[in-house]
Amino acid sequence: MPIYLRALLFSLEQGRNNISSRDLANFVGVNPWQIRKDFSYFGEFGTPGVGYNVEKLAKEIKKILKLDIIQKVALVGAGNLGSAVLAYTGFRIYGFDIAAAFDADPKKVGRKIKDIAIEAVSNLPTLRKRGINLAIIAVPRGAAQQTADALVKAGVKGILNFSPCYITVPKKVKVITIDIAMDLARLPYYMPAS
Amino acid sequence: MPIYLRALLFSLEQGRNNISSRDLANFVGVNPWQIRKDFSYFGEFGTPGVGYNVEKLAKEIKKILKLDIIQKVALVGAGNLGSAVLAYTGFRIYGFDIAAAFDADPKKVGRKIKDIAIEAVSNLPTLRKRGINLAIIAVPRGAAQQTADALVKAGVKGILNFSPCYITVPKKVKVITIDIAMDLARLPYYMPAS
Repeated sequence: MPIYLRALLFSLEQGRNNISSRDLANFVGVNPWQIRKDFSYFGEFGTPGVGYNVEKLAKEIKKILKLDIIQKVALVGAGNLGSAVLAYTGFRIYGFDIAAAFDADPKKVGRKIKDIAIEAVSNLPTLRKRGINLAIIAVPRGAAQQTADALVKAGVKGILNFSPCYITVPKKVKVITIDIAMDLARLPYYMPAS
Repeated sequence: MPIYLRALLFSLEQGRNNISSRDLANFVGVNPWQIRKDFSYFGEFGTPGVGYNVEKLAKEIKKILKLDIIQKVALVGAGNLGSAVLAYTGFRIYGFDIAAAFDADPKKVGRKIKDIAIEAVSNLPTLRKRGINLAIIAVPRGAAQQTADALVKAGVKGILNFSPCYITVPKKVKVITIDIAMDLARLPYYMPAS
């Protein structure tokens, strides 16, 4: 579903109003029949010969993924990766608003990146009051678990973890760990022997 | 398979020699029987009551994924994200060596990040001669497609794309696009209503 949503949002940006199941299938790399099967349970969004209404379908998927409201997100770690996250323009189309950034380095606190003033990590407990329950961890590996603990204590319910390590959280909290090296590790398998 | 490999490599770093299918299952979030099924076709790596030999199993998976040799990788784009990639320590455990970095900004050319001197993008055609056929794209969205074209022309066979857009390449080239916002978009679905 998130992959379909991304394809639809990109299509919208390109000014497309309708997309055929074949074009959408090409975009995301599946079979057209898979698309028709996956979308059949939303009811009738597709029109034969015209395709799906991109905006309607995107809206429907956003609702399913609970992305139909603006979600505030906190970033912890304002190093290179954290700065890249703050500068990343792709969050807004999914309805995310990076609303706060934190760093353990006192020298970074108070600096602004893309209009967000960096706060001390001692401010993390204010997240609950500020209605922020999503967070991105972009701290060095050694600090990842303690950061996660502080976030959970502050009421955070979902964590996107960029530190290359597993973090342990209570069951009610969902963590997705991104390991960019692991994604790279998927490539050689597909490459022809040279 | 890459997910199993990551879990095994992390276990190795923690000094573990053996891992049970149950522990490995917990790590990666699948059922123990799935692990036993997936690994059964490698032959006998598991010993009842002892578990799998972590090093042997990791080595076997590396061979399958063609990660058993050092793979040189080029990075294009030395902004925040590119710098984060250069500083990322997680590549080495998979056998990757970021061997070259390129940027379109003449002011960045010649600077060093983590011992890698940044080269002009006009140097991209040298990749073939240097035996580099994997690349990471971390350029602004508008420059992604032309970067991919230049990489393909230079003989690159696998691309990890961090620009939030689809890029078109010949069939023989494999592209994996990472959209960090899309990964974040998977979280709210799992979060309890608050």
